[in-house]
Amino acid sequence: MKKRTHTCGQLTKADLNQTVTLQGWVASHRDLGGLLFIDLRDRYGKTQVVVHPEETPDLAGIAHTLHSEWVVEITGIVQARPEGMINKDMMTGEIEIKVSHLDILNTCPPLPFQIEDSSKANEELKLKYRYLDLRRPEMQEVLMLRHHISNIVREHFSAEDFIEVETPFLVKSTPEGARDYLVPSRIFEGSFYALPQSPQIYKQLLMVAGFDKYFQIARCFRDEDLRSDRQPEFTQIDVEMSFVDQNEIFDVIERLFVKILKEAWNQDLRTPFPRITYNECIEKYGSDKPDLRYGLEFHNLTEHFKGCEFHVIATALQEGGVVIGLNLKGKANLSRKQVTELEELAKKAGLAGILPLKLTAEGFKGVLAGKVDDQTLKAVAEQCQASEGDLLLMGIGKKSSILKGLGVLRVKLAEHFSLFDPIDRSKTSIFWVVDFPLFERDETTGEVSPSHHPFTGFHPDDEPMLTTEPWNVRSTAYDLVMNGNELLSGSIRIHDSKQQAMIFDLLGISEEEIKLRFGFLVDALKYGAPPMGGMAIGFDRVIMVLTNRPIRDVIAFPKTTLAQSLMDGCPSPIDPQLLTDLHLALIPPKNS
Amino acid sequence: MKKRTHTCGQLTKADLNQTVTLQGWVASHRDLGGLLFIDLRDRYGKTQVVVHPEETPDLAGIAHTLHSEWVVEITGIVQARPEGMINKDMMTGEIEIKVSHLDILNTCPPLPFQIEDSSKANEELKLKYRYLDLRRPEMQEVLMLRHHISNIVREHFSAEDFIEVETPFLVKSTPEGARDYLVPSRIFEGSFYALPQSPQIYKQLLMVAGFDKYFQIARCFRDEDLRSDRQPEFTQIDVEMSFVDQNEIFDVIERLFVKILKEAWNQDLRTPFPRITYNECIEKYGSDKPDLRYGLEFHNLTEHFKGCEFHVIATALQEGGVVIGLNLKGKANLSRKQVTELEELAKKAGLAGILPLKLTAEGFKGVLAGKVDDQTLKAVAEQCQASEGDLLLMGIGKKSSILKGLGVLRVKLAEHFSLFDPIDRSKTSIFWVVDFPLFERDETTGEVSPSHHPFTGFHPDDEPMLTTEPWNVRSTAYDLVMNGNELLSGSIRIHDSKQQAMIFDLLGISEEEIKLRFGFLVDALKYGAPPMGGMAIGFDRVIMVLTNRPIRDVIAFPKTTLAQSLMDGCPSPIDPQLLTDLHLALIPPKNS
Repeated sequence: MKKRTHTCGQLTKADLNQTVTLQGWVASHRDLGGLLFIDLRDRYGKTQVVVHPEETPDLAGIAHTLHSEWVVEITGIVQARPEGMINKDMMTGEIEIKVSHLDILNTCPPLPFQIEDSSKANEELKLKYRYLDLRRPEMQEVLMLRHHISNIVREHFSAEDFIEVETPFLVKSTPEGARDYLVPSRIFEGSFYALPQSPQIYKQLLMVAGFDKYFQIARCFRDEDLRSDRQPEFTQIDVEMSFVDQNEIFDVIERLFVKILKEAWNQDLRTPFPRITYNECIEKYGSDKPDLRYGLEFHNLTEHFKGCEFHVIATALQEGGVVIGLNLKGKANLSRKQVTELEELAKKAGLAGILPLKLTAEGFKGVLAGKVDDQTLKAVAEQCQASEGDLLLMGIGKKSSILKGLGVLRVKLAEHFSLFDPIDRSKTSIFWVVDFPLFERDETTGEVSPSHHPFTGFHPDDEPMLTTEPWNVRSTAYDLVMNGNELLSGSIRIHDSKQQAMIFDLLGISEEEIKLRFGFLVDALKYGAPPMGGMAIGFDRVIMVLTNRPIRDVIAFPKTTLAQSLMDGCPSPIDPQLLTDLHLALIPPKNS
Repeated sequence: MKKRTHTCGQLTKADLNQTVTLQGWVASHRDLGGLLFIDLRDRYGKTQVVVHPEETPDLAGIAHTLHSEWVVEITGIVQARPEGMINKDMMTGEIEIKVSHLDILNTCPPLPFQIEDSSKANEELKLKYRYLDLRRPEMQEVLMLRHHISNIVREHFSAEDFIEVETPFLVKSTPEGARDYLVPSRIFEGSFYALPQSPQIYKQLLMVAGFDKYFQIARCFRDEDLRSDRQPEFTQIDVEMSFVDQNEIFDVIERLFVKILKEAWNQDLRTPFPRITYNECIEKYGSDKPDLRYGLEFHNLTEHFKGCEFHVIATALQEGGVVIGLNLKGKANLSRKQVTELEELAKKAGLAGILPLKLTAEGFKGVLAGKVDDQTLKAVAEQCQASEGDLLLMGIGKKSSILKGLGVLRVKLAEHFSLFDPIDRSKTSIFWVVDFPLFERDETTGEVSPSHHPFTGFHPDDEPMLTTEPWNVRSTAYDLVMNGNELLSGSIRIHDSKQQAMIFDLLGISEEEIKLRFGFLVDALKYGAPPMGGMAIGFDRVIMVLTNRPIRDVIAFPKTTLAQSLMDGCPSPIDPQLLTDLHLALIPPKNS
């Protein structure tokens, strides 16, 4: 093998008449009017290669045997393409290589799918032959962007005096939220490690150790039944700081996302990012991660319908229900059929129904038009900033259900009517959601569980409510939301071991259980823990949002929703002796 | 909590008369002639803080309650220290803060060991309270250096067009060499993932996918019985390149180590690094990772003793044995007792014995002096470049045993006589070991196993020997050795699926086993694999060598030799239901 002088994405007219050596894959090859053309591809691009059968019959003989994806080495002279063959869209589109040497470095059998066209191939086949699917330039671009963004992240935090510390992968099982992946110990019979769901506890210990500012791009693991946008192993950018308040944390992260959006999209984000309270998000958009690239804000219209006699509304209001509406601008002209489609969407969103009200030149149209006086409807329209040509949609019922249902419907409406351009980057919506509730309350049992994790701090003003109405206590947790995606989640932590004990107590975790699960953290908090806060940024999610691609495309070797790798065939059976060495036995399958 | 204006390592005389706010840990506190002094510590340094009881009696009251490692916030004015209290060794040694505000942010119970003095504390206690041991500035410095070096590594490879790709942690178990850590699958009964021993196969697949240049700082796992310099999880800098030969690979890595040594030690390494063949290393130093900071080269003296009648030598030579010597410069004056000590060292090194020969003003002294003629001994001395005052040590017997034993003895001698200064960085010895054998042969069974791993290429000139004398085939594997430590290990890989099949065959791995274990790689090699090569750099090892510290000091949260974390108590028992969910049961312990 010779030494390559250039990559396949490099040569231009500036290199004319040079003798060069390239290596790469045969992307395509064709015989045109006696000349043989080969497109040679590598990670950097493609270069056109020409063989002249009359001048170099031996090379032509070899060139005729080539097939797609064979690996070849060529040496030749850079020459200008004839006028008609110039391709201005390619970096190398003005030149070609006239070959004087051609060597086959490796062959390739018929492909399971065509590389350049693999977006159409069977998904399972593509996962099995992932190394072929990854030859697609667009797949490589995504992973190269991922690499660039990870460099930006590391440069950013390093420049701001953070240090990246590698935390362990074989850790104590401290189940909370999701299920741990477990690793049996060979040395200690019946004992197990867990793979970390996040480095949460370890980063807090690093703060106790005085590291002051920590970050890590860390793999995390959750043994969950997977949805299509989740992977059993995922990557997060983990961050923690000491002696800081929320503002200082937000500043650091805003500076990071300004750099990321500049690099990836050449977009300038304005700082500070807006901050919206959790309650406002829910009341206005029915979601804690609303997409603000389109309007469709909710309006609580209940007051207008006080005393309304239309039975649907009257009954709902008597039961403490609400009327909440949103304005579909300019959609009064929808046909009956189209309106029925909307009602179907509403049902899919979990709403019992939706009341449409059209504002037409002839006045209000819809079920309510006859049942409710025009003055009320006018006030309703005014609150919704609706005018002639608009369509109001109203949900009626129990507030939490209506907000939730309308929140889902809102997203469906935006898609249905293409209310935003998914690749119009100038419309990017990025903001903080703050003042999350500390606890979630199970509506049937009344039990509280942490909204974030049990180390999350609470708003000092709300401390008195901890014992009386804990579900109303605001936490110090926050999210960053971009175009409807939660990019990160974090909080100011509890750094006082007594406060931590109080929260565990409220969550009904016994002393014994605390000691067993979190004892080492609670101990550590006693030994001079500093005030601290931080977050975990979903790195895969960030790349998905930046590239507008599904999770499988942003991970080099992804798993299926059954947590299988179709490429290497894991998980797989093992030598029974290995299991015995781990002091374990398979439970025989039950007869059924 | 106020916002801190500075860290504890920042203030100098340039900041005099400024009002500042600092937060940190009480490193020490003392009452001197009515004034209270507190040393406040954070990751960045220490600052002296003074409380004047007469001017601020309230603050003095609080200050008197402080104990070591409490977390405090102070506000005050920067003032110059009185002449006698200036400490030129500290960045902040010329100033102190006269406090006007003092707040306790957290307390700390009596410590299990004193932070600044913890090098003397019980090792187990330090591992249990790792977050306290990590408060020692020297521990933080090691992890900060580790962070800086990892940044240099990433900047280096990124600048050279490598891309960092994250490979999976839940992989197929392909046992070879060490034992895998296994992760049971919940979804597939009786199936398991393995944690990767290295990303070897995945990086080769990335080359097949055309990524051209890959690197990753990756965690790896081995379930081995641990020696004190090993950890069950360790970090390697994983590198792979396509279309390259050994020279191009070496160039990239040499440029990296030039940067690392410049950053860490301010040493300029000369390139190219020397290359020494494996055979030369073994013949000259009895080791494939010799430390060249001191001499003690071996000399094969067998020829001189042909026909020698001294029975020890005659018998050995008749059995095909050798005489190999080394020269201990200037040690002819060792006492009989000291020589006996050397003989003890030789036994510990695995040698049956060692023959000393002193070169004194009165001629040769030692067992051989009367038994072998002076002319022979003179020739021996000459070959060893020995002169009056030197001491020769000779091993006699089977070549492989003598080389091995002398190799171990050589290291012991260097330590015993302090033949090098472990912190004299100007003597740094760094070089490549090349032409490793492809296979190791078990001396009793004759079976061959891969010296490196079964994907290692072989020297093209040696191909004919593959079937006749495979143990003499040179591989394309190489190591980089620095001051007696193997920093990396790599090779040019096999990229031809037929060659790969042939190697598997030589290793006695059946078709079925290949398919089961490496099938997906062998398949991938068929689909247009490029020529490729790379290496794995032991990142923990690099930091150990740079800091001259044991492995536990270069990892934030290390495990013991029983693979336990004394801090979090893992591995630990789990809820039996979790085990049942994994379709597993514990094997009850046998009665004994």
